[in-house]
Amino acid sequence: MFARLVATTLMLATAALGTLSAQAANVEDEIALQMYTLRNVGSAQEQFAMAHKAGFQNVEIVGTHDLSAAQMNAVLKENKLRVTSSHVQLAALEDHWQETLKFNKAIGNKTLIVPWIEAADRPDDTQGWIKYAQRLDTLGAKLRKEGMQLAYHNHNFEMKKYDGVTALEIILTHSRSENLKLELDAAWVSRGGQDPARLLKAYPGRFYAIHAKDNAAIGIRDDEMNFAPLGEGLLDWKTILPAARASGVKWFIIEHDKPKDPWSIITTSHRNLRAALSRAQQ
Amino acid sequence: MFARLVATTLMLATAALGTLSAQAANVEDEIALQMYTLRNVGSAQEQFAMAHKAGFQNVEIVGTHDLSAAQMNAVLKENKLRVTSSHVQLAALEDHWQETLKFNKAIGNKTLIVPWIEAADRPDDTQGWIKYAQRLDTLGAKLRKEGMQLAYHNHNFEMKKYDGVTALEIILTHSRSENLKLELDAAWVSRGGQDPARLLKAYPGRFYAIHAKDNAAIGIRDDEMNFAPLGEGLLDWKTILPAARASGVKWFIIEHDKPKDPWSIITTSHRNLRAALSRAQQ
Repeated sequence: MFARLVATTLMLATAALGTLSAQAANVEDEIALQMYTLRNVGSAQEQFAMAHKAGFQNVEIVGTHDLSAAQMNAVLKENKLRVTSSHVQLAALEDHWQETLKFNKAIGNKTLIVPWIEAADRPDDTQGWIKYAQRLDTLGAKLRKEGMQLAYHNHNFEMKKYDGVTALEIILTHSRSENLKLELDAAWVSRGGQDPARLLKAYPGRFYAIHAKDNAAIGIRDDEMNFAPLGEGLLDWKTILPAARASGVKWFIIEHDKPKDPWSIITTSHRNLRAALSRAQQ
Repeated sequence: MFARLVATTLMLATAALGTLSAQAANVEDEIALQMYTLRNVGSAQEQFAMAHKAGFQNVEIVGTHDLSAAQMNAVLKENKLRVTSSHVQLAALEDHWQETLKFNKAIGNKTLIVPWIEAADRPDDTQGWIKYAQRLDTLGAKLRKEGMQLAYHNHNFEMKKYDGVTALEIILTHSRSENLKLELDAAWVSRGGQDPARLLKAYPGRFYAIHAKDNAAIGIRDDEMNFAPLGEGLLDWKTILPAARASGVKWFIIEHDKPKDPWSIITTSHRNLRAALSRAQQ
């Protein structure tokens, strides 16, 4: 009887552990680090080594990091890292199409993300944003023929409303889902006065990834642009993470725009994000 | 016939002008300047002179500006300014009650506003915010007996949600309207991810004033904490101003936390606010 009880308990425990480790593996498979966070940490080699040391298995890169494709492949292999996606300026895509595609195909990256519009180049009316959306859509269709996909990453300026509609939603409604995904930077959405959970719910299937970072309040981390590791700031992750999962978000990407201590920021963010994603699975 | 037409037209035109100038006068009677905006403009005398020169008739002061009540009255009189309210730290009220009341009564100010909580002193759970609300409520009841009223001015930290409810709303629901009003800083509300119009609509009669300032996007006015004159940023004033009027807001107060060129900021803000309030009246 006792032996059977022990055996049953062990079986249950093993099953539970199996589930837990499967979950943990899944969670890590959803997490990446945006390498922009480490741009001030020595050489590219040192930056990717730090990502690996901090426990990341996936990274989102920025352009080429001044490496050839062969050098990038070597540094990724050395640090057991896969590339989820790359931040590429629109000009790099439109004016250096062949070069940009060649590099990304050579490193096995299929997702290119437009991360930023210079202040002087930003549309500022409905028609302007519609044209910008169409420009992205056209580019996305062209990329699709190459077996790749395009996404757009927001800051706060896309939260401005034109006749009651945010620029982000003008982009979404004037592009096709197959041609353009969004990478939702949750912290910048919130700084723009919008609710990331609302956007995630309203446009299921459109969000490829979220930048899972948090806003510290004024008076806290003032010298770090008031960004904080997920869970240590103002954002309501209890609603955002389940909404992201339900919306089909594939990647939860850690980023910090101006970390004073990059190692501390990425390890804390990683720990908090793993815990929050594990809770959101339950 | 022609003479009658001219006479009628003139009468209509005069009536229209009368209405317009009455409206304009009303608009100015709703506008004030938060003097914190001018804190780096020379002496207190020079700061109040600049407010007058920029066309303001009402100001919100900060403490005593290192003036005696008699000196404050003199500088206000000289610059034809009335005080709408004063920003006073909670400690000044709780620990220097007599002194604070004496000064404000002597300058004819009836509204005291708690503007800020230091990072280390901020509550960070529901119970903590309830206690803080009750502390304000008690103080407000005490002030009411002196013929004065208390209000609270937010930043972004009160936009954090606890079990789905923002700290600002915990303050509102755990204090009585007669004891505590809110001064809604629209730009900080939006930076905290909340919608000022929603709050104004949800709590009619609770908002004494709004700080009518705007958020510039990243990349614009980065060296001015990304604050902008109303209408030049991300906020949706077409919904906020009517919501403020409908909610019973008495004052629209211009403020900028870090203006590089205070004169340019206050005159541009003043012009934009007058125009927006006039449009909102129509």
